[in-house]
Amino acid sequence: MPDPARGFPKQEFAARTARAQARMADAGLAGLLLMTEPEVRYFSGFHTLFWQSPTRPWFLFVPATGTPIAIIPEIGAALMRTTWLDDIRTWSAPAPDDDGISLLTDLLSPMAREGAVIGVLKGHETMLRMPLGDYERLMAGLPGLRINDATGIIRSLRMVKSGREIEKIAHICAIGSRTFAKVPDIAHQGLPLDALFRAFRREALAQGADDVPYLVGGADQGGYHDVISPPSSRPLANGDIVMLDTGATWDGYFCDFDRNWAVGQPDDSSRRAYDVLWRATQAGIDTARPGNTCRDLFHAMQSVIAEMDDQGGDVGRLGHGLGMQLTEWPSHAAFDETVLQENMVLTLEPSLGYGDGRIMVHEENIVVRAEGAELLTTRAPHDLQVI
Amino acid sequence: MPDPARGFPKQEFAARTARAQARMADAGLAGLLLMTEPEVRYFSGFHTLFWQSPTRPWFLFVPATGTPIAIIPEIGAALMRTTWLDDIRTWSAPAPDDDGISLLTDLLSPMAREGAVIGVLKGHETMLRMPLGDYERLMAGLPGLRINDATGIIRSLRMVKSGREIEKIAHICAIGSRTFAKVPDIAHQGLPLDALFRAFRREALAQGADDVPYLVGGADQGGYHDVISPPSSRPLANGDIVMLDTGATWDGYFCDFDRNWAVGQPDDSSRRAYDVLWRATQAGIDTARPGNTCRDLFHAMQSVIAEMDDQGGDVGRLGHGLGMQLTEWPSHAAFDETVLQENMVLTLEPSLGYGDGRIMVHEENIVVRAEGAELLTTRAPHDLQVI
Repeated sequence: MPDPARGFPKQEFAARTARAQARMADAGLAGLLLMTEPEVRYFSGFHTLFWQSPTRPWFLFVPATGTPIAIIPEIGAALMRTTWLDDIRTWSAPAPDDDGISLLTDLLSPMAREGAVIGVLKGHETMLRMPLGDYERLMAGLPGLRINDATGIIRSLRMVKSGREIEKIAHICAIGSRTFAKVPDIAHQGLPLDALFRAFRREALAQGADDVPYLVGGADQGGYHDVISPPSSRPLANGDIVMLDTGATWDGYFCDFDRNWAVGQPDDSSRRAYDVLWRATQAGIDTARPGNTCRDLFHAMQSVIAEMDDQGGDVGRLGHGLGMQLTEWPSHAAFDETVLQENMVLTLEPSLGYGDGRIMVHEENIVVRAEGAELLTTRAPHDLQVI
Repeated sequence: MPDPARGFPKQEFAARTARAQARMADAGLAGLLLMTEPEVRYFSGFHTLFWQSPTRPWFLFVPATGTPIAIIPEIGAALMRTTWLDDIRTWSAPAPDDDGISLLTDLLSPMAREGAVIGVLKGHETMLRMPLGDYERLMAGLPGLRINDATGIIRSLRMVKSGREIEKIAHICAIGSRTFAKVPDIAHQGLPLDALFRAFRREALAQGADDVPYLVGGADQGGYHDVISPPSSRPLANGDIVMLDTGATWDGYFCDFDRNWAVGQPDDSSRRAYDVLWRATQAGIDTARPGNTCRDLFHAMQSVIAEMDDQGGDVGRLGHGLGMQLTEWPSHAAFDETVLQENMVLTLEPSLGYGDGRIMVHEENIVVRAEGAELLTTRAPHDLQVI
C-alpha cells in the first residue's frame, strides 16, 4: 500500500478554522490566541521540529472571521509562507525585550478598546508556551481585554479526527505494528535493554517512521516495576518480562502502544496478568462505540482488571486520545464523561499491579466508527509471546 | 574510549542545590517552584521521556535549605524514588479538578502566611508548564505569597557546566561527528531528502546516540532556502547544496551542529558562502575565551559574515548555549552581554543570506576553557565537501 499524502489540502485547514469560528461565535469570542505546537499546526499546517528550541515564542491568532494570523519569529517566515496563511507578521527573534509583544499588542488593542473577549488555552493538559512575565506584561498593556479559557473549544475540535488525520495515524500504527513484529528477531538473552531500545528505534525508522520521539519500557525477573524509565544496560535474562511502549511519528501524527514478551518461559502470575489485560483490552474494544463515554470505557476495562488488582492502579487512567500528540484528551477515567463520537482516535491502555511491586501494561490504538471500534494496531497475541 | 558513566552522583545534585540556595539567599527567596523538564532534572536527576505527554504537570520545590521536594503524579513515583530526593509527594493524575494544586497549597501556605517570596521562572526562554488556569487558582489560594522571577538564578547555574556534564556533551558531539562523517557514504544523487534524514537517524543511533530528537535541513539547486522545514521527498540532484543540522542526545544531553555538502561541483557563490562562514566560525572560536561577552562573539562572527551579507540575517543570533536542551541561554547577539566563563558550552552558528533567497548555516560546538575555546565537534573541513 502506498504511503498517504503528506500534509493537508487548504480546505482541511479552512474547515477546521470554520468549525472553531462557529464555536467561538457561540462563546462570544473575538478570537483565539494560540501558542502551542499542536494548535499552531492544527490551524496553519506549520510543521517543524524547531519547537524543540525553547528560545522563541510562536503565536497564531484565529479571528472571529477570516484566515488565522501568524505572529512568529522571522526564522519561521519561509516555512509559514508555504502554508495557507497570508497574514504573517514577524520579528527578529530572540528579542528578550520584545519577543512578539508589541506585534500582539498592535493586533489586540482594537479588541481591548471594545472590551472584547478572546480565548486562550488555560485548562487541563494545556500550558503557557511563552514567558509568564511576557504574558503578564502583554495583558497589563491591554486593559479592557477579557480572557476566557478556550480549552473546551479546542478539545472538542481536535478530539474528532478527519479522514486524512486517521489515515496518517493508521499509517504510523501499521509501521509500529511491523516494528513490534520484528522484536523477537532482535531481542535475545544477553542483549542489554538499552541496545534493544536502540535497535527498536532503528527498526521503526527502517519500517518507515519519521521519528521515534517516545520509547520507554522495562525488563525484569518475573515482571517490570516501572514504565517511564530510560533503559538500563542490564542484559535480558531468562525469566524476564520485557515491555516496550513507543510513540513513533509519521507526518506529525503519533501511534502510542506497547507490547510485552517473556524471555524464556513466563512465570504463572505474569502469564495471568497478561491474560487479564488482554481481556480488559477486549472489553475496551467492545465498549468503544459512539454514545458510550470514556467513563464507560474505564469501567469496562477496570471490571476485568479487578480480577487481579482491585486497586485500580495509580497511573490515573486506562487510555486516552491520540493524534498530533502522544497523549491527548479525553481520558479513560471515572472522572471523564466525554461521549465517544465517530472518528475519535483512542488508546486503550489497561494496566495492573501484581506480585511484589510489579506492573504490567497493555495498549492498542483504535478509531471509533459508527459500528464500533476499528483497530489501528495489529492486535497483540492472546498469549504472552516468548523470545 | 569507553562511554562516560550515565547519571550523576548525589554530590552533583547536592552541589547544584547548594549553589541555587546561595543565590536564593542573596535574592531573599524562600524557595523555587519549578515545573519544566530541564529544571526538574537538573536538581533531582529525574530523567524520562514521559514529559512528551502534556497531560500531567510535575513540580519540584527547592527550599531555602535542605533537599528539593517532588510533587508529582504517582506514575512517576517509582522513578523519582531512584533519585537522591526523599520527600516525594504524589497524587493520582490526571485529576483535572486538582492536579497537584492542593499538595502545592499545603506546601506553600506557611510561606504565604509569612508573606514570603518564592521564585518562579517567568523570563526569557521559559514557559509555564502547567495550565494557566491552575496557576491562577493556586496563586488566588495563597494570598500573601509573593512571586519573583527566578530566571536569572537558574540561568546563571545552568549556563556553566560541570565536568560530568561536559563529558556527556562531548560524547554526543563525538557521536554526531562520526555520523556526519558517514554522510558521504550514505548520500548520493537521486536519494530523496527524507530518505537521507531517515538514514542519518539510523546511523546516529548505530554510532551510539540515544535519540535524535532534532534533525532539520535542506537541499536545493545552488543553495537551500529554509533551515527549519521537515524534509521533502525530492531526490538529491547534481548542483544541490545539502545541509543537515542535528540535535542528538546521550543521557539527556544534546549536541547541536550541522554540516553542508555539495552534490557534484558547487557553484561559486555557495563555495564563497561556505568559506566566509568557515572563517566566521573561526573568528568565533578565537574570540570564545573567559572575559569576552556573547556580544563580542556576535561581532567577531558578524564582521566576517559582512563580507558577503551585511544585513546580519534574520535568524536573530549566531549561536547559543547547549546542554540539557537543544538551545539554552545565552545568545550570541548584540543584545546579550553575558560574560563568557570557563566551562560554558556553546554553539557557534554563523549564517548568511546570499543569491536569490538562499541561506547557508555553519555550526560547531565548543566548551570555553581558561585558555580559550575547545572544540567538542570535529571541525568541518575548510572546503565544501563534494558528494
